[in-house]
Amino acid sequence: MARLIDELRKLPGVGAKSAQRLAFHILRSPESDAEALSNAIRALKAQLRLCSVCNNVTDVDPCIYCASPTRSHRTVCVVEEPTNIAAIEKTRGFNGVYHVLHGTLSPLNGIGPEQLRTANLFNRLAEIDEAILALSPTVEGEATSHWLANELHRAQSREHPIRITRIATGVPAGSDIEYADEITMSRALEHRREL
Amino acid sequence: MARLIDELRKLPGVGAKSAQRLAFHILRSPESDAEALSNAIRALKAQLRLCSVCNNVTDVDPCIYCASPTRSHRTVCVVEEPTNIAAIEKTRGFNGVYHVLHGTLSPLNGIGPEQLRTANLFNRLAEIDEAILALSPTVEGEATSHWLANELHRAQSREHPIRITRIATGVPAGSDIEYADEITMSRALEHRREL
Repeated sequence: MARLIDELRKLPGVGAKSAQRLAFHILRSPESDAEALSNAIRALKAQLRLCSVCNNVTDVDPCIYCASPTRSHRTVCVVEEPTNIAAIEKTRGFNGVYHVLHGTLSPLNGIGPEQLRTANLFNRLAEIDEAILALSPTVEGEATSHWLANELHRAQSREHPIRITRIATGVPAGSDIEYADEITMSRALEHRREL
Repeated sequence: MARLIDELRKLPGVGAKSAQRLAFHILRSPESDAEALSNAIRALKAQLRLCSVCNNVTDVDPCIYCASPTRSHRTVCVVEEPTNIAAIEKTRGFNGVYHVLHGTLSPLNGIGPEQLRTANLFNRLAEIDEAILALSPTVEGEATSHWLANELHRAQSREHPIRITRIATGVPAGSDIEYADEITMSRALEHRREL
C-alpha cells in the first residue's frame, strides 16, 4: 500500500491525501479493474514511442501526419509539446506536417539547446520550404523562437533557403480590445497588417 | 423621491432596488454632497464635448492629442469608443492621433454607416499617410473594419494613396497556445510573419 501511494504521489497534481484516496479506491475496486489499469500503464510505455521524423508521440513510426500522402511535407509547423498538435489540427487550416521540440529553452530548469529535440529537424531542412514556429508567446517560447530561427537561418543551405515564420501575436478573435493587456496591444499595433 | 428613483434607474446596471438604495443614500447624506453631485452632473454635460477633429471626448477643442505638437498627425488610429484611446496610450508605443467612431456597425441595433461619426475622418484624408483600424476582432468590429477599409480605399485621392492597416489578431502575449481558441489559432497561423 505504502509503495503504491509513493508511486501515485509522483503524478502531477496528486498530493499525499489524493494518493491515499486513489490507493484505497484501487484496493476496493474489482481485481479486473486493477489488472486493466496496470496493463494499460505497461502497454502505454511498451507501445508508444516518438516518431523518428517529427518526435510526435505515436504507436506507429512514422506517425500518421508524417506518413500521410495528402499532407504537404514541405511545410513544417514546430511546436513545444505533442498536445499542441491537437490545438492546431482543430483549426482545420493547416495541412502540413509537424516537428515537436519536447520543451522550450529554460536555463533555470537546466533546459538548454542540447535538451531540445532538434537534430531530426535540421536533418530534413533540404526537404522543407517553410518552418512555421508555433511556440507560445511566453518568455520561454519567445526565447526559443528567436534561438531556433537563428539556428535555422544558419543551417539552411544557400541553394535552398527556407521561409522561417512565426504565428501572429495579437488581440484574440472575438475579444474586445478594451481587455487586451498592454504587451498584447503593443504587439498588435506593431504587427499590424495591410488591408 | 419617486422622480429621483426613476432617473437613477435609467443608468446602466441600476435596477429598481439599487435606485432606491442610491436615492436613500443621497437623502441621508449632507446637503453639500448632494449639491456637489448635482453640479458635477450638470458640469459634465456643460463642459465636455466631442473634439471637432477626432470625436474624442474632451473639455478643450481640439483635444489634447489633436493639439499636441509632438505627435505625428499623419498617422490616425481609428477606435470604437473614447475609452479605447486609454488602452492604446498605455502601450506607450503609439505616437499618432486618433479618430473615434462612437460605435460599430450593428444593423440589428439600427446602427448603420450613417450612425457612425466618419465625416471628419474622410475630410482629413489628404493630411493622412496611414489609417490604423484598431477595432475589436469581434463580429461587429470585423464588419466595421472591412466596410471602413473599403470606404477609405474609395475615398482616398489617386495622387495621395494612404496606407490602411489593421491591428494584429493572434495568440495574446504571455499565453500558452494550448489555451487559444480555434479561430484565434487559425488567424495566428494565417497571419504568421517572417522571422
